[in-house]
Amino acid sequence: MFFKVKTPEEVLEVLKGFGPVGIEEVFIGDALNRIVGEEIVAEEDLPEFRRSTMDGYAVRARDTFGATDTLPAFLEVVGEVTMGQAPTDTVTAGKAIRISTGGMIPEGADAVVMIEYVHLLDEKTIEVSRTVAPLENIIMPGDDLKKGTAVFVSGSVLRPQDIGLLAGLGVQSIQVYKRPQVAIISTGDEVIPIDRRPNPGQVRDINTHTLSAFCSQTGAVPIHFGLCKDNFSELREMVSRALEISDAVWISGGSSVGVRDITLRVLESFDGAELLVHGIAISPGKPTIIARVGNKAVFGLPGHVASAMVVAEVFLSPYLYRLSGGVSTLEDNHHYLQAELERNIESASGRDDYIRVKLSKRDGRFFAEPIFGKSGLISTLVDAHGLLKIGRNTEGLYKGQLVDIMLFKSFN
Amino acid sequence: MFFKVKTPEEVLEVLKGFGPVGIEEVFIGDALNRIVGEEIVAEEDLPEFRRSTMDGYAVRARDTFGATDTLPAFLEVVGEVTMGQAPTDTVTAGKAIRISTGGMIPEGADAVVMIEYVHLLDEKTIEVSRTVAPLENIIMPGDDLKKGTAVFVSGSVLRPQDIGLLAGLGVQSIQVYKRPQVAIISTGDEVIPIDRRPNPGQVRDINTHTLSAFCSQTGAVPIHFGLCKDNFSELREMVSRALEISDAVWISGGSSVGVRDITLRVLESFDGAELLVHGIAISPGKPTIIARVGNKAVFGLPGHVASAMVVAEVFLSPYLYRLSGGVSTLEDNHHYLQAELERNIESASGRDDYIRVKLSKRDGRFFAEPIFGKSGLISTLVDAHGLLKIGRNTEGLYKGQLVDIMLFKSFN
Repeated sequence: MFFKVKTPEEVLEVLKGFGPVGIEEVFIGDALNRIVGEEIVAEEDLPEFRRSTMDGYAVRARDTFGATDTLPAFLEVVGEVTMGQAPTDTVTAGKAIRISTGGMIPEGADAVVMIEYVHLLDEKTIEVSRTVAPLENIIMPGDDLKKGTAVFVSGSVLRPQDIGLLAGLGVQSIQVYKRPQVAIISTGDEVIPIDRRPNPGQVRDINTHTLSAFCSQTGAVPIHFGLCKDNFSELREMVSRALEISDAVWISGGSSVGVRDITLRVLESFDGAELLVHGIAISPGKPTIIARVGNKAVFGLPGHVASAMVVAEVFLSPYLYRLSGGVSTLEDNHHYLQAELERNIESASGRDDYIRVKLSKRDGRFFAEPIFGKSGLISTLVDAHGLLKIGRNTEGLYKGQLVDIMLFKSFN
Repeated sequence: MFFKVKTPEEVLEVLKGFGPVGIEEVFIGDALNRIVGEEIVAEEDLPEFRRSTMDGYAVRARDTFGATDTLPAFLEVVGEVTMGQAPTDTVTAGKAIRISTGGMIPEGADAVVMIEYVHLLDEKTIEVSRTVAPLENIIMPGDDLKKGTAVFVSGSVLRPQDIGLLAGLGVQSIQVYKRPQVAIISTGDEVIPIDRRPNPGQVRDINTHTLSAFCSQTGAVPIHFGLCKDNFSELREMVSRALEISDAVWISGGSSVGVRDITLRVLESFDGAELLVHGIAISPGKPTIIARVGNKAVFGLPGHVASAMVVAEVFLSPYLYRLSGGVSTLEDNHHYLQAELERNIESASGRDDYIRVKLSKRDGRFFAEPIFGKSGLISTLVDAHGLLKIGRNTEGLYKGQLVDIMLFKSFN
């Protein structure tokens, strides 16, 4: 079967055919970074009463009109608002009630005069030296949030302040999208578990650990299926089990044509399987296979770890984000940093090149040094801070040119 | 006691007096985003043998010198390399051995000719139509990493590819810095737990939940101490217990002068306590108190949630990063995005202003809309994507000006 190599845009479009994997309820204390799966509507005003934003005196604003240092207003203090309680006293003409920040405004008052503009004459009398406007230093009911307002829509990612707002509304648990479970399979007769000493010809399993950590970082849950020999029936059996218990299957390893053929034959052997992508016009990462089995995607990722990581950053990251229920408000979910290129880079046309780059900062400016190592070398990724994309219609970039670096996610 | 309000730079300097809280060993599968606490040195070459980067034939490069389509070199195929095993055959003059990507290069060979440049004449004979250079398509021992190389230094944050490199070296567990444990105390007679219905004058505890999630997001472990009344002995008792079991104490709430005084008196009541900061020249966030008790910092954070968040982003984030063992390579641990300001903003001199901003994207350009709500309103933080700093020597910014927005951390 012949398949045209797809453009990155076509692949991203294909991946939009896969959606969220379900909903679950979590306590808001566990909801950080989770993606909201329901519309949350405020069931009450926040706050529900008028609050003071300052330490001072609750007054009738009109009683202070025209007050100055030389011609102050004199008011009688008739009580104090106790924090956390509804005031029992009322402010009438010429009266004032002591109040602290966050306190409930008493009946009759429509403004708070700050303590800084008040001079205490005696136990019962204050001198106000400044005019306050009606509603000054007051938060009104619903000022933070009005009852009935949609607070979060499905797809919002919960940040600390979002959790705080839910707390303020008394929302203790919330429906969020389930984290997608990704089965990770590493193939290759030469690959051994990391707790074994390699014999000549053998290498430890780098890909499972790199891709698992990538999954976790993207909010998905990796399931280690471990190693699989380059063997049709063994791989088919493993993929079959993986499809049963996970939401997506990532097969990596096997950069040789023979091994890729086995992966391809395995994917095609499932009932109703559809080969969606067989090759992508990017470098590194071209030998990527994507098939649909039922409603799940199965990925045959390049064996070279740097190729697999480029595919992960460019395609698997937005794919997992969709599976997690995410709807990005700012289009791309990578952070970018602008830097000056330190060398000329040539690039072949007809494909998007992703160059690993190392960043440095000198005199307040960022510089990007391309790393040109072979894509089988994990150290080139470890040295890099991010990727530089050279579009397929660009023949190259010049030293000194300003470029946007797609940053690898890093916690800090 | 009189204390000069400190500049943000002075506060950051003061916070450098607090360091990492300890070391623990974790399995590399749990080490994502953790900070390395030891120097990791490669104890072996990676790889340990010569590997092919292509499917093809292992040959002596000199046997292909001058080969072209019209004048190919003829070589005898004497075997095939089995993946994961040391080859038993040797390449001598005029011979070739079939090899797959990742296979171990046989003795005698010094290059791999790609399958694309080989024509199979019969079972035993190939025609090579291209010259290969010595070492072409070969990864040499130590090409990825040489034995004895320092792979990670103390302070490196582990990303997926870093975990992968550890896997490749057979490192199964690693010393990392412990996550700092932060005791979070919310004060205020008006504050109630989120599972209770507020009476008039009462509000639910927004700050504990916001600050806890902020802790988690920064890699620290929040410990909920819950609510505390505005009462010296109750707060002292709680802070005392918090100091015993945590690495730092954050007290929030209580924006009134009276409550701040209680916090201050509690902090000063501990043996050998040192008041480090009493007010910071920023807005919002000025009424911040920092004390040292023993080797731990105790923070009195502003009660207004937006003020507390600004203090958290600007000071607590780098502080927690240091406590976690982090050494940033790129100075600031925030991501920035450049945007066009949508309105003029005035700013008072003498303090750094942090304006909440909402971002939008139109025609490929980012725009920043300032949010001017009161700092007690959590909704202003929920609407915002980040903060815009206006330095204390800047009087204001103009509509249309390009500004750098400090982005709130968000998972995607």
